[in-house]
Amino acid sequence: MDFAFDTTTEELRKRLVEFMDECVYPAEEAFEEQAAESGWSIPPLMEDLKDEARRRGLWNLFLPGEHGAGLTNLQYAPLAEIMGRSPRIAPTATNCAAPDTGNMEVLSMFGDEWQRRTWLEPLLKGEIRSAFAMTEPDVASSDATNISTSIVRDGGEYVINGRKWFASGAMNPKCAIFIVMGKTSQDGSAHRQQSMVLVPRDTPGLTVKRGMHVFGYSDADHGGHAELIFQDVRVPVDNLIGEEGGGFGIAQARLGPGRIHHCMRLIGMAERAIELMCTRALSRTTFGKPVAQQGVVQDWIAESRVKVEQLRLLVLKTAWLMDTVGNRGAHTEIQAIKIATPQAVEWILDKAIQVHGAGGVSQDFPLAGLWAGARTLRLADGPDEVHKRSLAYRELKKHMPTG
Amino acid sequence: MDFAFDTTTEELRKRLVEFMDECVYPAEEAFEEQAAESGWSIPPLMEDLKDEARRRGLWNLFLPGEHGAGLTNLQYAPLAEIMGRSPRIAPTATNCAAPDTGNMEVLSMFGDEWQRRTWLEPLLKGEIRSAFAMTEPDVASSDATNISTSIVRDGGEYVINGRKWFASGAMNPKCAIFIVMGKTSQDGSAHRQQSMVLVPRDTPGLTVKRGMHVFGYSDADHGGHAELIFQDVRVPVDNLIGEEGGGFGIAQARLGPGRIHHCMRLIGMAERAIELMCTRALSRTTFGKPVAQQGVVQDWIAESRVKVEQLRLLVLKTAWLMDTVGNRGAHTEIQAIKIATPQAVEWILDKAIQVHGAGGVSQDFPLAGLWAGARTLRLADGPDEVHKRSLAYRELKKHMPTG
Amino acid sequence: MDFAFDTTTEELRKRLVEFMDECVYPAEEAFEEQAAESGWSIPPLMEDLKDEARRRGLWNLFLPGEHGAGLTNLQYAPLAEIMGRSPRIAPTATNCAAPDTGNMEVLSMFGDEWQRRTWLEPLLKGEIRSAFAMTEPDVASSDATNISTSIVRDGGEYVINGRKWFASGAMNPKCAIFIVMGKTSQDGSAHRQQSMVLVPRDTPGLTVKRGMHVFGYSDADHGGHAELIFQDVRVPVDNLIGEEGGGFGIAQARLGPGRIHHCMRLIGMAERAIELMCTRALSRTTFGKPVAQQGVVQDWIAESRVKVEQLRLLVLKTAWLMDTVGNRGAHTEIQAIKIATPQAVEWILDKAIQVHGAGGVSQDFPLAGLWAGARTLRLADGPDEVHKRSLAYRELKKHMPTG
Amino acid sequence: MDFAFDTTTEELRKRLVEFMDECVYPAEEAFEEQAAESGWSIPPLMEDLKDEARRRGLWNLFLPGEHGAGLTNLQYAPLAEIMGRSPRIAPTATNCAAPDTGNMEVLSMFGDEWQRRTWLEPLLKGEIRSAFAMTEPDVASSDATNISTSIVRDGGEYVINGRKWFASGAMNPKCAIFIVMGKTSQDGSAHRQQSMVLVPRDTPGLTVKRGMHVFGYSDADHGGHAELIFQDVRVPVDNLIGEEGGGFGIAQARLGPGRIHHCMRLIGMAERAIELMCTRALSRTTFGKPVAQQGVVQDWIAESRVKVEQLRLLVLKTAWLMDTVGNRGAHTEIQAIKIATPQAVEWILDKAIQVHGAGGVSQDFPLAGLWAGARTLRLADGPDEVHKRSLAYRELKKHMPTG
Repeated sequence: MDFAFDTTTEELRKRLVEFMDECVYPAEEAFEEQAAESGWSIPPLMEDLKDEARRRGLWNLFLPGEHGAGLTNLQYAPLAEIMGRSPRIAPTATNCAAPDTGNMEVLSMFGDEWQRRTWLEPLLKGEIRSAFAMTEPDVASSDATNISTSIVRDGGEYVINGRKWFASGAMNPKCAIFIVMGKTSQDGSAHRQQSMVLVPRDTPGLTVKRGMHVFGYSDADHGGHAELIFQDVRVPVDNLIGEEGGGFGIAQARLGPGRIHHCMRLIGMAERAIELMCTRALSRTTFGKPVAQQGVVQDWIAESRVKVEQLRLLVLKTAWLMDTVGNRGAHTEIQAIKIATPQAVEWILDKAIQVHGAGGVSQDFPLAGLWAGARTLRLADGPDEVHKRSLAYRELKKHMPTG
Repeated sequence: MDFAFDTTTEELRKRLVEFMDECVYPAEEAFEEQAAESGWSIPPLMEDLKDEARRRGLWNLFLPGEHGAGLTNLQYAPLAEIMGRSPRIAPTATNCAAPDTGNMEVLSMFGDEWQRRTWLEPLLKGEIRSAFAMTEPDVASSDATNISTSIVRDGGEYVINGRKWFASGAMNPKCAIFIVMGKTSQDGSAHRQQSMVLVPRDTPGLTVKRGMHVFGYSDADHGGHAELIFQDVRVPVDNLIGEEGGGFGIAQARLGPGRIHHCMRLIGMAERAIELMCTRALSRTTFGKPVAQQGVVQDWIAESRVKVEQLRLLVLKTAWLMDTVGNRGAHTEIQAIKIATPQAVEWILDKAIQVHGAGGVSQDFPLAGLWAGARTLRLADGPDEVHKRSLAYRELKKHMPTG
Repeated sequence: MDFAFDTTTEELRKRLVEFMDECVYPAEEAFEEQAAESGWSIPPLMEDLKDEARRRGLWNLFLPGEHGAGLTNLQYAPLAEIMGRSPRIAPTATNCAAPDTGNMEVLSMFGDEWQRRTWLEPLLKGEIRSAFAMTEPDVASSDATNISTSIVRDGGEYVINGRKWFASGAMNPKCAIFIVMGKTSQDGSAHRQQSMVLVPRDTPGLTVKRGMHVFGYSDADHGGHAELIFQDVRVPVDNLIGEEGGGFGIAQARLGPGRIHHCMRLIGMAERAIELMCTRALSRTTFGKPVAQQGVVQDWIAESRVKVEQLRLLVLKTAWLMDTVGNRGAHTEIQAIKIATPQAVEWILDKAIQVHGAGGVSQDFPLAGLWAGARTLRLADGPDEVHKRSLAYRELKKHMPTG
Repeated sequence: MDFAFDTTTEELRKRLVEFMDECVYPAEEAFEEQAAESGWSIPPLMEDLKDEARRRGLWNLFLPGEHGAGLTNLQYAPLAEIMGRSPRIAPTATNCAAPDTGNMEVLSMFGDEWQRRTWLEPLLKGEIRSAFAMTEPDVASSDATNISTSIVRDGGEYVINGRKWFASGAMNPKCAIFIVMGKTSQDGSAHRQQSMVLVPRDTPGLTVKRGMHVFGYSDADHGGHAELIFQDVRVPVDNLIGEEGGGFGIAQARLGPGRIHHCMRLIGMAERAIELMCTRALSRTTFGKPVAQQGVVQDWIAESRVKVEQLRLLVLKTAWLMDTVGNRGAHTEIQAIKIATPQAVEWILDKAIQVHGAGGVSQDFPLAGLWAGARTLRLADGPDEVHKRSLAYRELKKHMPTG
């Protein structure tokens, strides 16, 4: 057992921290200003940052194997944490932003050669963006078997009908391709009825209807969260990813890394929040002494540090397990971090907001926006309660009388 | 001891519930649609609702004494709760919305005849709106002695310089008058240095700079929360409310009722949230049974009910104390409800959101917006921590050795 | 609506507070000393206190109707709270201690004349004690239909077989009579199979096996919590309380008042804890200032006060409902206080312990013992989770689509 | 970074698990029976277990360096966890029980040759026991500078006067030696006034007055927690450990490993609690289904697992830091685990108790006793609040403006 990072990780951490210090943090203010005027487009300064990240070899770090940087999950984890300190800029600038990351992984693992050439390559280059359309407004999507969008084969085509929402990134005009989950069959095993197909943005019958809000935020600078209407949308059968009935399996494969990436970035957000909380507490005075000397504020700071240290280690161990025994072997740990991280980071952000007073809930500090993101992750990719139920079931199973 | 409402209250509750059922709830959808297109103005349908409320005798219910409906706090409390069930419409429709309520109370209690005629009358009629400018971006405003805006007498005028923010309602073009708190003296007792003056919106030197956000919300349909710049703003000395050095006292007098009104409405919001939580839980199915049968969801519903029943009683008792022993005698209880209510209602809203899945954080349900309001009330009118500190001090004082 | 006590209540509160100040608090130290040497008997000084309470007209205050003091629940509630401040002495001294209170209520309401003469009268006089044998070690007793003790009619007798535990008070040699719940039928409606019978302590076949501990406490000074073995125990059919199959109904009738009495006393314990917490915080110094000036401790004190104020009002309203619409009409509120009070008071006691340092967990302060009592009430008379489930079900029912 | 144990650890874990399975768990019932009749002595079966542990090479595992097993903290941590699963037996059986462990470390590090020969040797052999007398009833001992016991040099002797309590283990007649902390000076730096001296049990003037309780438990089977009176107690100057004024430093050195050992064992207790909670939930039925299918219980199980996984990793990392950068370098982490572990394990034990119903608070399951231990550790070795304050201070320091 050894808690030190390897030299590859240390070298990349150093390089990434330099990039953050020299390019990302200094761009934050301008990014917000541009974002306020960019409508649904990504603020223009992002392209320069992407060029810079590419130049510095900080590109596609998330992707294992030949198509990406080839890092293990354990090597990528501390890098994602650093990116998470400026989560509206750094992940996109390094082409490590959701949902593209998950979509690239899907295409990399399950896409055929044509799909990879047509969609994976421009994604890897950061030329286009993508979206993932799974959640539906009309059913409780936390139970994937509820999905009601239909994908019906008709000759050489699939015909898609249904309604999706919270397709993150899809409001961005540069979002060119959607991975859509739907039912190709009403019969058979509940987990073999779903399939995934690629639907280009300009396909007739597909309407990108509106952006859903998240606690008042449109997240326009990240392409928002779209509601999509599929009305007799037709795509060639070649657009099927993997095989018919494989959708649930691909979703599971996609969600493991997706969840850990979210958790890694959340830890970076938490570190940023602690930093802001301390700085603010040191700079303001009430009732004759700095806020930093208020016992309750000290209690929050200590609890925050204690929570973050625990979470980080569990995320790192989970990454190590994914690397050593595979995503399936790390199932309990992936669920554990998905349960623990958003709630703890939400708590830390809440306290950081409180220390900032009215400013904390406003656009003048990043805290309220980060909070909305952390809160939403208690729902996204499966609400906490569903993960806990499943985790408890496995725990109970260990103690069931056999025979 | 008797827990039944008196007949005046019962009669008004009945009338108000009818108004809610017949006019308010049915207008909610259209209100949101108009709000999305009204910029900083109040959605136009509001004027019709105000006419209707006036006609039904549901007007200025908050205001005791001759200028208003003449109800006691105990009589008004359950009415404010009902309004709180649709907090973006009902309080404004009945001319019972903050910050006008507090401002009308201030003018009613401390304004001279000219001030009452000029500003209180049109406010009571709902013809103009008003704002209250106290919080400042540059100091920890939870400690009122920190306030840095200066109000300097110069002959027959006061000259105001400073920066305020979170002046709720001030972005609305119909907001005609601001009550501004500042320092008229740098010497003497820390609580006798502040004064309040009336500053009309069009006074030269006053800039309504921008709307502050609350999480992602601009609250534009309620006039937002403005940042105001005062640069050599001059008003006649007649615009002083009460006496020089009386600002802190007026603020205290204003905040008592203001805090209880917020708490009353929060309880209505909590009831609405429970209703939505139950309805949703009954209508959605996951893993083969209605969400309403999930034990964890039942636990949330029960906890919500238990919390609300306790909070409501403490709010009612506080109102009764204000009526019987005065605001000062109810100091501990006012602080207690200000501490307890926002955090409990925030919790309930959080659970209602969780039951709604992704929809819960979006604009399709009122929950996320209500949540942002409840969360902000843990800061507004003094953060929880300041109230707790003060309440604890009084508790400790009871047990201090005397002599 | 009126939050003032009536004159009967005020007069009795005054008289009871005098009794506490003059007799109860001064006896606490000696009581603990005697308790340490009394084995399973009640410390001898108790009889003097009982005489004194009788003389002062502070006797059987809990019992409505002709057999007791004739107070309403609303009148008794604040008295029980005062007794709860010294819960090991005051309730027993005034003949208002569980489980006798509940047993007297049962005999008063459901006992026939012979039963009342034989058992109720000496109980009302405080000459004997009683126990209630319901919980069983072998089944989850939170679901009363699980009860497995059998009561089988055989001619003019009932034959009882089974095992009970946590029969509070039964280790006390003066505990002369047990009310035993068991099944007289295996068929029919699940809630009509149980009956209650009176079993005198010296009945052959009944073994008072051992005292169960509550955390490390034997509660010997209150007769402990006995495990009882019933092996072919025979009692005359006249010992049946009410009718065959009526046991579940009697249990429900008994538990309503029982639960509210517990909650009333818990509030008194909480007040005592706050008092101790403040006094200690004022008397100890760490790191250069009194503990009372530590922000975190102030936060606890404030939260404690806020919790207690809310709980008390809900308990009082529940009492008022029981008086005005009956126990059944107050079902939701009874459950609400049973859920809310033990957990809140446990929290307050925990903080008071923490302020006392190592002393807080020891026998030198009453806090750890009170804590064990509060904690156990999260289980006794139905665990929180069962009450919440039931309360949620009724809340959901309000929102179920009809037809 | 690597999360696998090394081979030494794996081998010892295997051997220790065998010992637990073959000797410790099977002895638990008999141990409790003997404990009920042993007065202040250790139950006699312990000596056999000690012999067996010695024979199996499972002896003094806690002690690094030549005097003990020579393991690193990282190697010992998972072994201590396993011992923590049966905390009343396994640590003592393997001579790894507090407070002897800490005392042996002190003597090993700071004792001179005579002290080591006289006291360390029989302790290492398990022939005698020892106690540590630091906490005082008359001052807030969480601030070590408050300590009031005086140690005054008088010729070739030290004269000790003062009162100590919670000297764990000291009620055991085999406890032969006390390490006593007191003040040798009233002047100079606040952290250089304390010294530690060795006081044999039979020294005139020393009275072992009584055993303090912990939530009703006397912990007699571990020698209890004694109150000690020192009245002109004289020991030779040779009994000074280290140098005059070095007491605070020795205490700090002692507490680091002591705290981590407690945390390691607590994690074992948590694992035992989860095991018991699952087993019970699977075996009991309420309202027509196994308790294990109740959503709230599943939620508790999942939360428990998630908490334990995080805690264990932080404890292991702390151990690694102690090994690699020293106790001082691991200061933040040692405080972090001391804050996080007792409160989390207390929570888990509370839930396990709740699942067990009334049995959970009783002597029939180990849960209530374990709970009392975990709760007390929120106070022992410094209350949480003191650690949090100190940890926050270091966190804030990182962000203080320099210059």
